[in-house]
Amino acid sequence: YHTLSGTKIAKSIREHAHREITSIRKKHPDFNPTLKIIQVGDRPDSSTYIRMKLRASKESGVHCIVEKLPKGISQLELLNQIRKVNEDESMHGLLIQVPLPSHLNETLIANTVSPEKDVDGFHRYNAGELAKRKGNPYFLPCTPAGCMRLLQETQIDLAGKSAVVIGRSDIVGNPVASLLRNRNATVTMCHSHTTNTPEIVSKADIVIAACGIPEYVKGEWLKSDAIVIDVGINYIEDHTKKTGQRLVGDVEFNSAKDRASWITPVPGGVGPMTVAMLVENVLAAAKRQLAQRDRIPQIEPLPLHLQNPVPSDIEISRDQPPKPITQVAEELGIHNSELESFGHYKAKVSLSVLDRLKHRENGKYVLVAGITPTPLGEGKSTTTLGLVQSLTAHCGKPSIANVRQPSMGPTFGVKGGAAGGGYSQVIPMDEFNMHLTGDIHAIGAANNLLAAAIDTRIFHESTQKKDSSFYNRLVPKKNGRRTFTPSMLKRLQKLGISKTNPDELTPEEINKFARLNINPDTIAIKRVVDVNDRMLRRITIGEAPTEKGHKRTTGFDITVASELMAILALSTDLKDMRQRIGRMVIGSNVNDEPVTVEDIGCAGALTALLKDTLKPNLMQSLEGTPVMVHAGPFANISIGASSVIADKLALKLMGSTSKTENAGYVVTEAGFDFTMGGERFCNIKSRASGLTPDAIVLVATIRALKLHGGGSDVKPGQPLPQEYVQENVDLVAKGCSNLCKQISNASQFGVPIVVAINKFQSDSDLELETVRKAALEAGAIDAVATNHWEKGGSGAIDLAQAVIRATDQPKNFQYLYNLHDSVEAKMESIVKNLYGAANLSISPEAQAKIDTYKNQGFGDLPVCIAKTQYSLSHDPSLKGVPQGFTFPINDVRVSVGAGYMYALAAEIQTIPGLSTYAGYMNVEVDDDGNIQGLF
Amino acid sequence: YHTLSGTKIAKSIREHAHREITSIRKKHPDFNPTLKIIQVGDRPDSSTYIRMKLRASKESGVHCIVEKLPKGISQLELLNQIRKVNEDESMHGLLIQVPLPSHLNETLIANTVSPEKDVDGFHRYNAGELAKRKGNPYFLPCTPAGCMRLLQETQIDLAGKSAVVIGRSDIVGNPVASLLRNRNATVTMCHSHTTNTPEIVSKADIVIAACGIPEYVKGEWLKSDAIVIDVGINYIEDHTKKTGQRLVGDVEFNSAKDRASWITPVPGGVGPMTVAMLVENVLAAAKRQLAQRDRIPQIEPLPLHLQNPVPSDIEISRDQPPKPITQVAEELGIHNSELESFGHYKAKVSLSVLDRLKHRENGKYVLVAGITPTPLGEGKSTTTLGLVQSLTAHCGKPSIANVRQPSMGPTFGVKGGAAGGGYSQVIPMDEFNMHLTGDIHAIGAANNLLAAAIDTRIFHESTQKKDSSFYNRLVPKKNGRRTFTPSMLKRLQKLGISKTNPDELTPEEINKFARLNINPDTIAIKRVVDVNDRMLRRITIGEAPTEKGHKRTTGFDITVASELMAILALSTDLKDMRQRIGRMVIGSNVNDEPVTVEDIGCAGALTALLKDTLKPNLMQSLEGTPVMVHAGPFANISIGASSVIADKLALKLMGSTSKTENAGYVVTEAGFDFTMGGERFCNIKSRASGLTPDAIVLVATIRALKLHGGGSDVKPGQPLPQEYVQENVDLVAKGCSNLCKQISNASQFGVPIVVAINKFQSDSDLELETVRKAALEAGAIDAVATNHWEKGGSGAIDLAQAVIRATDQPKNFQYLYNLHDSVEAKMESIVKNLYGAANLSISPEAQAKIDTYKNQGFGDLPVCIAKTQYSLSHDPSLKGVPQGFTFPINDVRVSVGAGYMYALAAEIQTIPGLSTYAGYMNVEVDDDGNIQGLF
Repeated sequence: YHTLSGTKIAKSIREHAHREITSIRKKHPDFNPTLKIIQVGDRPDSSTYIRMKLRASKESGVHCIVEKLPKGISQLELLNQIRKVNEDESMHGLLIQVPLPSHLNETLIANTVSPEKDVDGFHRYNAGELAKRKGNPYFLPCTPAGCMRLLQETQIDLAGKSAVVIGRSDIVGNPVASLLRNRNATVTMCHSHTTNTPEIVSKADIVIAACGIPEYVKGEWLKSDAIVIDVGINYIEDHTKKTGQRLVGDVEFNSAKDRASWITPVPGGVGPMTVAMLVENVLAAAKRQLAQRDRIPQIEPLPLHLQNPVPSDIEISRDQPPKPITQVAEELGIHNSELESFGHYKAKVSLSVLDRLKHRENGKYVLVAGITPTPLGEGKSTTTLGLVQSLTAHCGKPSIANVRQPSMGPTFGVKGGAAGGGYSQVIPMDEFNMHLTGDIHAIGAANNLLAAAIDTRIFHESTQKKDSSFYNRLVPKKNGRRTFTPSMLKRLQKLGISKTNPDELTPEEINKFARLNINPDTIAIKRVVDVNDRMLRRITIGEAPTEKGHKRTTGFDITVASELMAILALSTDLKDMRQRIGRMVIGSNVNDEPVTVEDIGCAGALTALLKDTLKPNLMQSLEGTPVMVHAGPFANISIGASSVIADKLALKLMGSTSKTENAGYVVTEAGFDFTMGGERFCNIKSRASGLTPDAIVLVATIRALKLHGGGSDVKPGQPLPQEYVQENVDLVAKGCSNLCKQISNASQFGVPIVVAINKFQSDSDLELETVRKAALEAGAIDAVATNHWEKGGSGAIDLAQAVIRATDQPKNFQYLYNLHDSVEAKMESIVKNLYGAANLSISPEAQAKIDTYKNQGFGDLPVCIAKTQYSLSHDPSLKGVPQGFTFPINDVRVSVGAGYMYALAAEIQTIPGLSTYAGYMNVEVDDDGNIQGLF
Repeated sequence: YHTLSGTKIAKSIREHAHREITSIRKKHPDFNPTLKIIQVGDRPDSSTYIRMKLRASKESGVHCIVEKLPKGISQLELLNQIRKVNEDESMHGLLIQVPLPSHLNETLIANTVSPEKDVDGFHRYNAGELAKRKGNPYFLPCTPAGCMRLLQETQIDLAGKSAVVIGRSDIVGNPVASLLRNRNATVTMCHSHTTNTPEIVSKADIVIAACGIPEYVKGEWLKSDAIVIDVGINYIEDHTKKTGQRLVGDVEFNSAKDRASWITPVPGGVGPMTVAMLVENVLAAAKRQLAQRDRIPQIEPLPLHLQNPVPSDIEISRDQPPKPITQVAEELGIHNSELESFGHYKAKVSLSVLDRLKHRENGKYVLVAGITPTPLGEGKSTTTLGLVQSLTAHCGKPSIANVRQPSMGPTFGVKGGAAGGGYSQVIPMDEFNMHLTGDIHAIGAANNLLAAAIDTRIFHESTQKKDSSFYNRLVPKKNGRRTFTPSMLKRLQKLGISKTNPDELTPEEINKFARLNINPDTIAIKRVVDVNDRMLRRITIGEAPTEKGHKRTTGFDITVASELMAILALSTDLKDMRQRIGRMVIGSNVNDEPVTVEDIGCAGALTALLKDTLKPNLMQSLEGTPVMVHAGPFANISIGASSVIADKLALKLMGSTSKTENAGYVVTEAGFDFTMGGERFCNIKSRASGLTPDAIVLVATIRALKLHGGGSDVKPGQPLPQEYVQENVDLVAKGCSNLCKQISNASQFGVPIVVAINKFQSDSDLELETVRKAALEAGAIDAVATNHWEKGGSGAIDLAQAVIRATDQPKNFQYLYNLHDSVEAKMESIVKNLYGAANLSISPEAQAKIDTYKNQGFGDLPVCIAKTQYSLSHDPSLKGVPQGFTFPINDVRVSVGAGYMYALAAEIQTIPGLSTYAGYMNVEVDDDGNIQGLF
């Protein structure tokens, strides 16, 4: 007979595992297969088994962590522990050592372990898959797998062999029978009710003994040359041994060995194999995670059923059942624990994804911008959505669209919702256009807490004349003790006061600390509201008698114009956000020194209100492409782009482990034309994110180009003049000057450019060709027509392919100016190089402010120029490419928290109004809760 | 031989099913076992099988619906259909007819069917459980189950019998082997690789032939008297038949029948049994659903690890890992499809639950109210939470706490968060105290859209002097056509104009329709903000030049004071909410006629903004009891209670099918003391809901009673005077007058009363006993001390038991007044009967308004009296039980949407201020995103 030595094979398995881990680690230094064992209570037998597992793990190079939990732990607490390990990326296998104390439900507990970490193979997922003929379990249970490995050593083909399994436990008998059946053996299962086991055994080529009866199978039962696998571990009395007992199997080894061709000893047979297979399972789990970690996302498209004429946006959205957002996340490789669902079709994504994927190269980064806007619209958002729908549903490339969250002002005002339309949009569009996950509401709440805190502080400082009594109220006794809050300590530090005991401040220090002495005329923080409420543009507050005459003129902005929104868009993480909020300058004190949110003492509270807004919102397009909706700073006075964090996250999700591998695409958008939105994107947002676009898509329409070419004025709601609906190549050719200037402006940043001509039925081939030629001459690498509004992604295939080619081109990104240039030089470089102005004229008031800001140390900030979006110049009536004009800067302000200075070339309306007929008037909700009439 | 006639047995199974369904229907008329079959494409063989299933269903009284889907359906669409059926309560079984077209993944599809509806038994859950020795599948696969039923007919004990299964498919061979093994047969599986099937068969007592080879098993193979089950269905050529073919099994019947003791014929053997078992599975599923529908919720407590001294609320909350909210919902019997998660620990519950559970009797309804509030606090919310924690975690009774959502004003102001504290609170407390699911934000957005719409309408009406041009803008042409919006049609209807074509209105009609002529001085809608911003109490708006001098003095309320919040609290469903919003009176026109939100045209948009707020928010207590957080109308000028819908929903979830059965408890709260909050609860909220409390808990503390008894004044932050921390039975005894008056007031509504004395360490036994005696004398059925703040639910066991007893008492609920009583009489009944006033004095201004409201048809509304909460009278300085006073009504207003009139006995501050040291100052967020310093 041959001995099937489990000890020897197990050793070679452990060594092999060790070599494999070492080899993988050369490429992936963080590869660290880890097994977590949870032991409840402290049964000595369990402790012995766990020691064996620890030893085998160590020898294999597998990390093994044992967590001992108290015997009396409640089931809920144990389940919580299990769920934690399920969600812990660094744990690949989880084993709950059985038996458990009797108050715990073993079945429930075994089935709470994630099937993908169930290295014991006890979860019903794995048991169910194993039981099936062509099932696909994540793991095989260790002892049965060990038996099969031992059989493999004999090099005998199991097909057609007669096998008998004695014992029908779920741990050994049942699964080993399934495994033998899958290897095409003819299997008979014997058990306590079987009447003729010896007879059945006598016919068997293979005998697996797993009945738990010492030396049950006798040698004389065996067919000659049978292979015998003995799973039994039984202690029997033996007075010749020191311990008084001896370990035997379920087979009488001495009589069996002479008939068997191969036989496993006890100990040293199946036992060590069980532990070795456990280690192998952990290694397999870690390898699977490694492979999945870098797989390219497989995004399942939602089929479109196109109709003609194209129905309303809300109808199209309502007729398309979205994928559950959990599926979208899973397709992207976002884990369950990294997702917070908000209903069925929206979710927030945790920033921990960034850390998990930090080793990845970024995906391709595509910026969509436009020509100078006209009342006719160019369809930039539609193009963003159409492009990702095409890339993913029609060109087999994973992609994500990153878009801004729309304000509810336009939703119920005139413009209507954002993010596409027709067959290229974000769904469900009503949820997208209203509260979403409440980010804008949170910004409103935070902004208005700050505003209330500022005015109330001024009020209290003014009504409480004595420093000491004001200080006593500001730092009150609680349970007989006074303590500074964390924000007060920060203010003390800024003032150079190192005391931490409130009772130790001198009267001078108290005055310095407690009196902010804010000059009410300098307050830069307005209150906000997310509705087009024109009556709040300028108001007088504090008129109630309780405010004792502390009136002040101020106003409301629309919420998205809050500096907090710009901070949300530009922050890179929570800590950065906290610091930016603290830095925000709310105005000056009577000595013209800046007063910050930190001084007011509410930076922490504002961060608490905003902490969840930092997590990007995940939705999907009409064709099932993932869409991240995050932040939406007002385009006129801010960057008008979605968030840095969403871009970072999406680029990692679309990324790959090596630069050469095929990665996915992130398509995002800049507000207004390239010259405004694109410039800010490259000079401000890219500086904050460190991310630069790999291609720029410039969107134009034939109609808008005609307007720039000198076509007559267009008014919403009135029929279009003839030149817009009939061929007019001449107008188009003239209007191309605007497009070409945008191309030339974009070229200054060193990024490949594609022109997308958003097509209407009335556009003629000659017109399209005219644009194409002009664009190529101006330096675009391609110019293609697209009609995704009507056709979804299938209408944008040419565009998608052009974009794929563009991102494969080399780029040579450069900023337009250096941060250390003077403020005036930065302005000049934008105004002359991009706007095409001959001169820059800075008003004396603006110049004075610039000088102050320089003195305050804000001179190195990038510059955002607020001007009309309807012209390359400051004059909205100048279409095409105005030249020779002098560009005026009337006023300058600073958003220290957001991190830029902004210069005003026009009076910018920061809260729109409602028109006589406004969007809200047509909205209804039917009895089933469906919204009607929203666009 | 005996024939095992499947035809006969199947018939008896169908008949038995029919009888059973009929019998269950006698008790449950809506019992309707239903099978959904999805057929993709139209294979004729599939259609034949489906016809057989339809016929069998019909004969069994099982409803069977076949849904045919196109052959080319995308996988995603098919999965969506499956998910829909999974969530459809009216479908008990779902069968996807196989084979499916090759572009569909059969494994994924089979595993998308809910295991609980998987009547085919193909889901890996059911396969996995069946494979296990002691598994617990929801369903057995039909053919194997049919085989077993046939074997049962032979009445032979299978234990120890030798069985052979020929074939190892997942549909028959594998599962039937598991079933035989579970019946203790010794099973051998033969298959295509088996070399000696005849030999194995010759030893077998039982032969299951399922290999799909015509007449494979020969008679001569069989052991004499073997039982033969023939699963085969094979068509072979037979020219003697008209069809040219003949149906045979896997067994050669003619040779086998003579050796077998029992044998199944083909056809007429296993075939009909398969279909019969399918029907039985559907019936079993329907019966299981029926049983589950009325099971008492099993709520698993979260274990408490009490510390002393009691840590801060936020620390206690952070140290207690909550159950996933999906688990809380499941424990309550809320289905997945009825839940919208908001992150992991909050969810919204769909109102469809109400319809699903409409057959249930309500659970017990407990109202917690207090004595007249003092600065010392009584701990009403803590008692609400402690009571449910005790009921569920310590007394084995299911319960739900229904609480209000706190405003963020107090959260960052002085008072701090709501809903408990110490070891009796709602968790996670930071999420509870901030945005929650955004309901308050949504109310703010809706309220402010309304306010903007009102002022803008006045502005546009005033700046567009000509009726025709104003009308043209109000009803503009779109694509050449003008149409009225739904809300415009409602206004036309109200004006008695039946035209629907905008072009047909006469100039007079246009004037009547388009001009609302709102009198700006009468506007009752203020803007709102959810922060304590005192500067907004009175403001002047419209001061920007763009508003052309349309200034107006108005102000902001805190959001929870919006009438929309009261509407949310009192609405019974979405339709009701829509109508209430439309009815809201925003002011009068120049002719003193009421102008409504419907007239403004934004009732639909407001409803769209608020539709999701109607779904109550589910959270949990520190001990894992479910908590519904819903609505939070301002207590001073509204009902100060949580919503009607949450109460209805919770009472159904805690309900049972019969009045005698043990049901669960819903504990909710009334703002302020019983005399204010409780009175409004009973007279206003109960009228809207139709629900009346089964018991009232009155909360008091020894300290507060001492204050009512004449104890010296108490100031926050200052040490308590001696009498409050030392025994003073005399003061307690005097102060009990207030408690006794509250008891007597509550008694007028005919509901059993329990007094809860919220205990402090300094309370003496004698003091407690004094209160107890006084309370019992005043008519309380019990008075018990409770210290849940320190001990959680274990500190409130006496209270819980007293409440259980109280709800078992008979009640005789009656309203305090009749709605048809005159307004003055209603006021008098509250003021005299409850407040204890000698006289009521109504100011002339108030009287004039009352007369106007009566004329406008609002005289039958219930009355809410707004007065100080610090005294039973209108004078906050009068503690204890003031008598002989004249109660003044200074002003009267009407909330037509919310559905009550309110009378002001004092200037009520509807937006608080921030104090010098305010809550926000101490809040920080650590780098892990944990909030610190929030209370």
